[in-house]
Amino acid sequence: MDNRPIGIFDSGVGGLTVTSRVINELPCEKIVYFGDTARVPYGSKSKKTVTKFAMQDVRFLLSKNVKAVVIACNTVSSNSIEDLKKEFDIPIFGVVEPGAKQAANVTKNTNVGVIATAGTIRSGAYERAIKQFNSNISVYSKACPLFVPLAEEGWWNDKITYLTAQKYISGLIDKKIDTIVLGCTHYPLLRKCIEETVGPDVSLVDPAYETAVALKKYLFKNNMLREGQCGGHEFYVSDITETFEKICFEALKQKYDAKLINIEEY
Amino acid sequence: MDNRPIGIFDSGVGGLTVTSRVINELPCEKIVYFGDTARVPYGSKSKKTVTKFAMQDVRFLLSKNVKAVVIACNTVSSNSIEDLKKEFDIPIFGVVEPGAKQAANVTKNTNVGVIATAGTIRSGAYERAIKQFNSNISVYSKACPLFVPLAEEGWWNDKITYLTAQKYISGLIDKKIDTIVLGCTHYPLLRKCIEETVGPDVSLVDPAYETAVALKKYLFKNNMLREGQCGGHEFYVSDITETFEKICFEALKQKYDAKLINIEEY
Repeated sequence: MDNRPIGIFDSGVGGLTVTSRVINELPCEKIVYFGDTARVPYGSKSKKTVTKFAMQDVRFLLSKNVKAVVIACNTVSSNSIEDLKKEFDIPIFGVVEPGAKQAANVTKNTNVGVIATAGTIRSGAYERAIKQFNSNISVYSKACPLFVPLAEEGWWNDKITYLTAQKYISGLIDKKIDTIVLGCTHYPLLRKCIEETVGPDVSLVDPAYETAVALKKYLFKNNMLREGQCGGHEFYVSDITETFEKICFEALKQKYDAKLINIEEY
Repeated sequence: MDNRPIGIFDSGVGGLTVTSRVINELPCEKIVYFGDTARVPYGSKSKKTVTKFAMQDVRFLLSKNVKAVVIACNTVSSNSIEDLKKEFDIPIFGVVEPGAKQAANVTKNTNVGVIATAGTIRSGAYERAIKQFNSNISVYSKACPLFVPLAEEGWWNDKITYLTAQKYISGLIDKKIDTIVLGCTHYPLLRKCIEETVGPDVSLVDPAYETAVALKKYLFKNNMLREGQCGGHEFYVSDITETFEKICFEALKQKYDAKLINIEEY
């Protein structure tokens, strides 16, 4: 057994949807969450900048004595996971590989859609990862930059969100996809709208859930599960904003206070 | 005369619309522009974080030997201008005061609308500034978080942008405003949509233009205009992204290359 906490970080608050999945799968673990709300979003920034920020994020979590790190950010998972694994001697889990694996398992007609931020799409990480599991799969990708602000605005069921989804996703539907990957941690907040836009014949893959399952298997296999008392989660941000509270409650159905840290010191 | 350049900074690329206005009004001046594209946006962040970032931005411009600084960012102008003026011994121009003054001059029925980012609206800076010019004016404010990503997506004439504008602005129209302040530097890119949404009886105030005029008057009065050769503008960013190129060309009708700097060193 290993009673140290699990570290989870994201560019901001989107990673709280991943945290929710991890807590569901591993209810006895303690979580230390960091959201880089001062520098959010990462999705529109370059690989070099994203990797630099991610290094600081992991260093902060290590200062909290975590036993494993979950990159609850598709942009970092896509662009920087190899650099992070080289730099740090700790198990590091990204969301891309588990999501890609599930997409490859689920598709029947080998046409898979991926929706994500510009940075994730530009990296080509989902496409590469899905093709590693099955090279016959055709991957169709689409960056959806408005989905994050729409989710943060709380317009989850608004006509504008449905029209935006239609505009972004119609090209993927034309390609006859039967599976779509929600390649950004905010997108589960728009799940209903995305589900209705793609229709009942397209399966949704949520990499957050797949990552939580992969983490659980790893901790079990390596005898690293926590024993004893549950909970005591800690939340840290680099800037105090209203959005943390709103999304935290939506994702975790519970109010948590976040502590402020200066991430540039790490 | 004073041949040193004028420094202009913004959280990202929106300040290029202000730069365009300054170049139009002062075609013989040299501009040094900094866009903090690694940490954009500021509009959703706290006053403390915004002020810290803005201090670094000004320190960078001072390292380029500028004679005056234009804060081409409504969020910084609203939250941090007093702190910046205390810290630095150089003329500093924000966009809020000139915009507020013009709104107070233009309104006939004393009902003024202000649209801006969440950070600018929360600061109450436009409301305070407009009331300083005329305390009888009623100011109605509305944060429009989707306008920046819509402008950056290039959906300037899209139905989604019109519906979003309708949703944000209808409450202001109900208040019988006859003047509306474009309180974010991205919004001039959506000018046509905003104009059509508010209708022909509402005057649009663009603080970028008013700021350029105020700067011109100041430099003239203090004998600080540049003489000799024009142009030679320099553009710096904290992250290289495609958006700079797209918005730069849209705002300045010319291609410029931006140099990368590490703003955290300042």
